[in-house]
Amino acid sequence: MTTTQAQPATPVDLAAIRTRVDDELDRFLRDKAAASAPALPGELTDTVRDFLFAGGKRIRPLLCVLGWHAASGCPPVPRPILRAAAALELFHAAVLIHDDIIDNSDTRRDHPTVHRALAHRHADRRDPDRFGAHAAIVLGDLAMVWSAELLHTAQLTDAQLSEALEVLDGMRADVMYGQYLDLLTTARPSPDLGRALQIIRYKTVSYTCERPLLLGAVLGGAHPGVREALAAYARPIGEAFQLRDDLLGVFGDPAHTGKSALEDLRDGKHTALVALALANADPHQSARLLELLGNPDLDERQAATCREILAATARPRVEAMIRARWAQADRVLEEAPFPTAVGRALRHIADVVVSRNT
Amino acid sequence: MTTTQAQPATPVDLAAIRTRVDDELDRFLRDKAAASAPALPGELTDTVRDFLFAGGKRIRPLLCVLGWHAASGCPPVPRPILRAAAALELFHAAVLIHDDIIDNSDTRRDHPTVHRALAHRHADRRDPDRFGAHAAIVLGDLAMVWSAELLHTAQLTDAQLSEALEVLDGMRADVMYGQYLDLLTTARPSPDLGRALQIIRYKTVSYTCERPLLLGAVLGGAHPGVREALAAYARPIGEAFQLRDDLLGVFGDPAHTGKSALEDLRDGKHTALVALALANADPHQSARLLELLGNPDLDERQAATCREILAATARPRVEAMIRARWAQADRVLEEAPFPTAVGRALRHIADVVVSRNT
Repeated sequence: MTTTQAQPATPVDLAAIRTRVDDELDRFLRDKAAASAPALPGELTDTVRDFLFAGGKRIRPLLCVLGWHAASGCPPVPRPILRAAAALELFHAAVLIHDDIIDNSDTRRDHPTVHRALAHRHADRRDPDRFGAHAAIVLGDLAMVWSAELLHTAQLTDAQLSEALEVLDGMRADVMYGQYLDLLTTARPSPDLGRALQIIRYKTVSYTCERPLLLGAVLGGAHPGVREALAAYARPIGEAFQLRDDLLGVFGDPAHTGKSALEDLRDGKHTALVALALANADPHQSARLLELLGNPDLDERQAATCREILAATARPRVEAMIRARWAQADRVLEEAPFPTAVGRALRHIADVVVSRNT
Repeated sequence: MTTTQAQPATPVDLAAIRTRVDDELDRFLRDKAAASAPALPGELTDTVRDFLFAGGKRIRPLLCVLGWHAASGCPPVPRPILRAAAALELFHAAVLIHDDIIDNSDTRRDHPTVHRALAHRHADRRDPDRFGAHAAIVLGDLAMVWSAELLHTAQLTDAQLSEALEVLDGMRADVMYGQYLDLLTTARPSPDLGRALQIIRYKTVSYTCERPLLLGAVLGGAHPGVREALAAYARPIGEAFQLRDDLLGVFGDPAHTGKSALEDLRDGKHTALVALALANADPHQSARLLELLGNPDLDERQAATCREILAATARPRVEAMIRARWAQADRVLEEAPFPTAVGRALRHIADVVVSRNT
């Protein structure tokens, strides 16, 4: 034996949770591939697997497991909890597959999006792009259906399953509401900050943070105080997450984010950043922004003009909003009835959300 | 009182079941509209409602309730069973909404498809067609999510819910498998009857007949003999249903079917009809068919040529397949351990499936 020892595991090891969640996803997809061969083509599972394992922050499964720890302390995480957490990621894959069709995105996580990958795989079709989009609609649906199955077969108790379904029904509807509002406001930039924050509440606060935490919490049998503290943490952190995302969508480095920094501008996404810019810009800046945002042929020079105006009128305000939300989440954690290790992990996630560049 | 009396209700009144299922759908959507106003636009629920109530055969909910009757005899149908049946229809709406985008269909049930209706509603957008397709992707997802919620909140017992989820997980994956295989074979007409029948087994046997019947059966606590008889009925009837559908897609009267009789030919759908035609056509007919099928600009004269060749080489064979399957289902019903009234209702459905013109 050597004298070097493994570091003692931290009580909540986020990297280890991530690995175990990914193992569950991998196992589920391998089982599906084995059960469906040779009647069904391998591309069904291969494409979903390639997409899942190209990257991703796994924020929803991590928050789910942390919600469970908040309720249950820090024993090893049982497999049913990991499978429930993995189901969130598979559902998210479905959302992203459809979202990338809608946004006409070519890359995500530095890899081709699913509809692009399928177009490439079926390049011999008359219209591969159309085929790819259509196949991706079905594959997104299938990922959604599989996600439900992964949860249903997680070996939860009847009571756990019934509570989980209630949390998830709300979560799944909220993200679709958010997506729909997003569509309605896209290419309609306006100074309406309230509308931008409403979309954030559906798509990010509820879907990305609050419901995943609550799912873990109900699976762990959390008492109301724990649930309330998790919700109080989720709200500012969800907002901060999306506000950072909006900044990265415009000012981010595609080498880090894995996606284009032109798309949000070309689409004319209605974000808090844009709303604040239009509310604070002078008439000349405002007119210029309205002229450029949502122009599908926006070139790099025009994008630079947008960025200049957004930076001058709104970026510092959005950064301040992020800081204020981070501080609010921090205060919640100070007082929250969680084991110390859980509070520490949630603070780590808050730090990452706020300062990430991917 | 007059001397005319209402006819005594038949023990299984399909029209009454349909009405009660529709009432559940209506109530669910009204609750959703009330709960989401004014934050969310009314078009979310309105569009789904318009689509659902424009028509439809309600075959899946009817079979679900008949599966329940097969297990439970003929007492009044409890609301949880009706809500589970209604959830099938809402899921089906989701499938159709996405399917119509993929097939680029303008009408269904004699009304505009959802993506067309949304394009019309948002005609002031830069690209209304694109907007309509994207909004319909999200709305289909939402209908899928709502369908799950409708089932979860149906007030089933824990045991019923757990068995129902298992049946539904299989059903929902099967239809997506079928849709994907359908996509892969579309515009690739071939004499491969086996492949056409495989698609039917996923999309129609399992999704449309077997799983809905089984859902009702497990909710009613059916013993294995009942389940087996329902499956033995579902297989031939599901095949007959789709074979009739394929014939109607080519030879049907749009005034009755509510959809174009050109689309399947223009898409080059790989159906049993096409497979049998290519297997039995002479070289000249075969070459002509392969030249025309899948031509997106196929005109009425060319479609008539396709129909002539299909009628000469395959239509009678498909009609014979339908009759054989009807007879097989009939034999199953002769021996099935169902209450007489249930057998009679299932025979009625078999008759309608076989001889329908819509």
